[in-house]
Amino acid sequence: MSKSKKSFRPKARVPRGLRDQSGAQLQAERWMLDTIAGVYARYGFELLDTPAFEYADALGKFLPDQDRPNEGVFSFQDDDEQWLSMRYDLTAPLARYVAENYDSLPKPFRRYQWGPVWRNEKPGPGRFRQFIQIDADSVGAPGMAADAEMIAMMADCMDALGIARGDYVVRINNRKILDGILETDAEISPTDPASEEKWLTAMRALDKHDRFGWEGVEKLLGEGRKDESGDYTKGAGLSRENIDNVRTSLSAAFTVSGAPSSPSAQPSGQLSKYVPGDIDKLVDRLGRSTIGLQGLSELEEIAACLAALGIGSDQVVFDPYVVRGLGYYTGPVFEVELTFEAENEQGEMARFGSVGSGGRYDGLVEMFKGVEVPATGCSFGVSRLMAALEALGKTQTDEGQSPVVVLVMDKERIADYLVMVKELRDSGICAEMYMGGSGMRAQMKYADKRRAPLVVIEGEDERAVAQVTLKDLILGEQLSNEISDNEEWRSGAQAQVSVPRAGLVEGVRNMLIRIDGRQG
Amino acid sequence: MSKSKKSFRPKARVPRGLRDQSGAQLQAERWMLDTIAGVYARYGFELLDTPAFEYADALGKFLPDQDRPNEGVFSFQDDDEQWLSMRYDLTAPLARYVAENYDSLPKPFRRYQWGPVWRNEKPGPGRFRQFIQIDADSVGAPGMAADAEMIAMMADCMDALGIARGDYVVRINNRKILDGILETDAEISPTDPASEEKWLTAMRALDKHDRFGWEGVEKLLGEGRKDESGDYTKGAGLSRENIDNVRTSLSAAFTVSGAPSSPSAQPSGQLSKYVPGDIDKLVDRLGRSTIGLQGLSELEEIAACLAALGIGSDQVVFDPYVVRGLGYYTGPVFEVELTFEAENEQGEMARFGSVGSGGRYDGLVEMFKGVEVPATGCSFGVSRLMAALEALGKTQTDEGQSPVVVLVMDKERIADYLVMVKELRDSGICAEMYMGGSGMRAQMKYADKRRAPLVVIEGEDERAVAQVTLKDLILGEQLSNEISDNEEWRSGAQAQVSVPRAGLVEGVRNMLIRIDGRQG
Repeated sequence: MSKSKKSFRPKARVPRGLRDQSGAQLQAERWMLDTIAGVYARYGFELLDTPAFEYADALGKFLPDQDRPNEGVFSFQDDDEQWLSMRYDLTAPLARYVAENYDSLPKPFRRYQWGPVWRNEKPGPGRFRQFIQIDADSVGAPGMAADAEMIAMMADCMDALGIARGDYVVRINNRKILDGILETDAEISPTDPASEEKWLTAMRALDKHDRFGWEGVEKLLGEGRKDESGDYTKGAGLSRENIDNVRTSLSAAFTVSGAPSSPSAQPSGQLSKYVPGDIDKLVDRLGRSTIGLQGLSELEEIAACLAALGIGSDQVVFDPYVVRGLGYYTGPVFEVELTFEAENEQGEMARFGSVGSGGRYDGLVEMFKGVEVPATGCSFGVSRLMAALEALGKTQTDEGQSPVVVLVMDKERIADYLVMVKELRDSGICAEMYMGGSGMRAQMKYADKRRAPLVVIEGEDERAVAQVTLKDLILGEQLSNEISDNEEWRSGAQAQVSVPRAGLVEGVRNMLIRIDGRQG
Repeated sequence: MSKSKKSFRPKARVPRGLRDQSGAQLQAERWMLDTIAGVYARYGFELLDTPAFEYADALGKFLPDQDRPNEGVFSFQDDDEQWLSMRYDLTAPLARYVAENYDSLPKPFRRYQWGPVWRNEKPGPGRFRQFIQIDADSVGAPGMAADAEMIAMMADCMDALGIARGDYVVRINNRKILDGILETDAEISPTDPASEEKWLTAMRALDKHDRFGWEGVEKLLGEGRKDESGDYTKGAGLSRENIDNVRTSLSAAFTVSGAPSSPSAQPSGQLSKYVPGDIDKLVDRLGRSTIGLQGLSELEEIAACLAALGIGSDQVVFDPYVVRGLGYYTGPVFEVELTFEAENEQGEMARFGSVGSGGRYDGLVEMFKGVEVPATGCSFGVSRLMAALEALGKTQTDEGQSPVVVLVMDKERIADYLVMVKELRDSGICAEMYMGGSGMRAQMKYADKRRAPLVVIEGEDERAVAQVTLKDLILGEQLSNEISDNEEWRSGAQAQVSVPRAGLVEGVRNMLIRIDGRQG
């Protein structure tokens, strides 16, 4: 801390919880973003970009009279004393944007956006404090068709990324159905001040189903649950009878184990197509709840739209346990789950899990406007999805080809090597001259590290006969893993060819085609 | 400030100095980034992404013992008390990345990167506190060929963006030449403690040539200069004789007015190609200065490489007034200037000016590593360049096509409209159903605002005869700017056709082709 200015040398380190990305992995991520953006655009969504930070009060989580509105977000004070916060998602900035430009925007306003968001949270393995989301939203869209579109679009994105049918499923639900079940079976409601708190705890309990199973949910609906570490979470305090009733309702249209039961014998509109249980039994149980039946009827509408959009029951399934943590959802909610198994952070084989989600949030823009603006949207978490594509071996890149490297055999002849590079680039081949200051060994090491497919060599010998040598590094690596000196290396004849200097581009192109062919 | 929680409603506003971007303008910017990235990739640069913030000490401008390292950057303290700063360029994070990963990286390390950077500065018209840069750098590249490559690549980017030869020029210089001139003609030097301060002020003075002309530079080299607002800038205090000598040297190879003099009669290597004056005269004047002659010799090497890369004297020109403000440049410096005139912020016609720049910075990575790592790079400022493309009418987009809108004529038949949308999308046509809750007038207004090329209408009449009506909105707009009611609107017959429902996709495609054809 008290080092002098001159001797101070900062340690080069990426900040805690952040990361650098490069090369093929980053190219693959960009390809993935382009693919999803392409689907969004085909659905008629328009690109939007908002700044990295917003006024803290506009991010919605915070109230302006808090001393330091910093929980969960990165915040700082501007020189005019106003608090700025880095966006923690793309939805809050959208709400601000729509409210600010409401009169001039087309209504509904349909936008997509991708970019980094930031969370001031404790980082962990695979949990970064900056990550990319890619979202689409329809703001000013009251009908269930808009929600159905989001669900269909998420399924379409999975298809576009090459994830096979059966390897993903979009789970859909409606918060109102849960409200109906809790109202009917446990007599609690978000609109009843006496049971509001219980209702919130019960919703949180249901949200834990994918992590703890029914056994855990049961405890959280009742007295409470102690986890492995000994931490105790207080439950909603529902009675044994209430809990059993809730379970019966949930099981009606969806078996608790998660495995679908036989489809309903009596189809009820298109909904039964997406319900792995007996939807009529659920209707019966919700008989007394207005809100519950409204949720079911909305789900019916969604199902009809999904069927019209050609979405199959192998792509979408009703699941009453989908709650979604975020506070602002008001009706339909959905999430995309990858159903195949992959190694998790603990090294165990497990279902890959959720990679995206969405839902209806009719109250968010209201925060600014004072009038309800119905909206629905979806969002993919890009790093989770990237990890999934890697596990499936489905990553692709559409550029980022490794360069052909022209070696510097004679520093006096740099201009000649640059002419070669120019010829290659002008033919669309990614190429470069070695720009370092080192000798042959370092140059070959460089070409290896860059994963160059081939190098171009024009030394004294080649020049004397107006030829260049092309060395196939991929084949060369297979033929010999040890190169002890320049002489021996240059004699690795099987992996190299000589072509006339005038035929450089053609020779390189032919070798690239052969390499591509070998790699399938 | 003391509003209650319930009544508080934040004002929706984008933070001061920031902006939202959307639609065609944003798509055009992405196209521009893709185009430049494509050139960088073809030159063999690899994509890198670093986080939005770095430890403040790693950003180079700051020392850790300052209380609040906030000048010019946005900074905040992490919960472990460390200061984080948002990156203000992409070069400092690159230096940190290279130092952190030095052993595992290919050397030279050639990367490109694009993304937002942030400046905590007073915003103004066209001056934002968040803007995008797109950079390429070669780290560990000591030779002048690496600098020449940057210069050639910037010119290539201009070509790729469709900016005509003559509308841009890359101005190149070498700081060492300026050091030589100041040493020879004014006896000041950055390595002499007695004149270090004078040298810095003199360099700053030369840097102002594009803004103030020689008249202003002269004052800043001498006693000082008062600007229009009355603000006074103290000068370097050089004598009249010194100033005249400096001017004679600068004029030797570059006329002070900026207009090229006749090319040198005696070509000196390839350099004379890019020098709009008498290079030999400059050599003569630098006769006593080692650093000056070294600068000239480096420039000779660069010129030889540029010539090999096919760069013409219409693309690159030597200009001794190129200084570049950034402190870290150590040798060659260059900037891309757009030479055509466009309206500036004051509404006057003026040369567009600089859109990108670069240079050699052999000392930057040393800050972390303690050893010199020679490096050179280039950077484009994306919003300046976008404004230039707009002024030239050269903006392009490669997606972001406006959607065909299927109107909702009957809310009971949403499923049917969705089937149409699906058919269109499946054929690669960007399409959507109107998702709002309003009637015909609002739907047409929506389609207009979205700049939809056409709408699809299937009302009762059409349905009865298994047809759909396609309305060409572009033509319709031309034919009538006033639509007083639904009846009248639907009778606007010239701009619409009826096609069989089964021929929807073909009909839409034909109309889109006709619209494209009319728009050229």
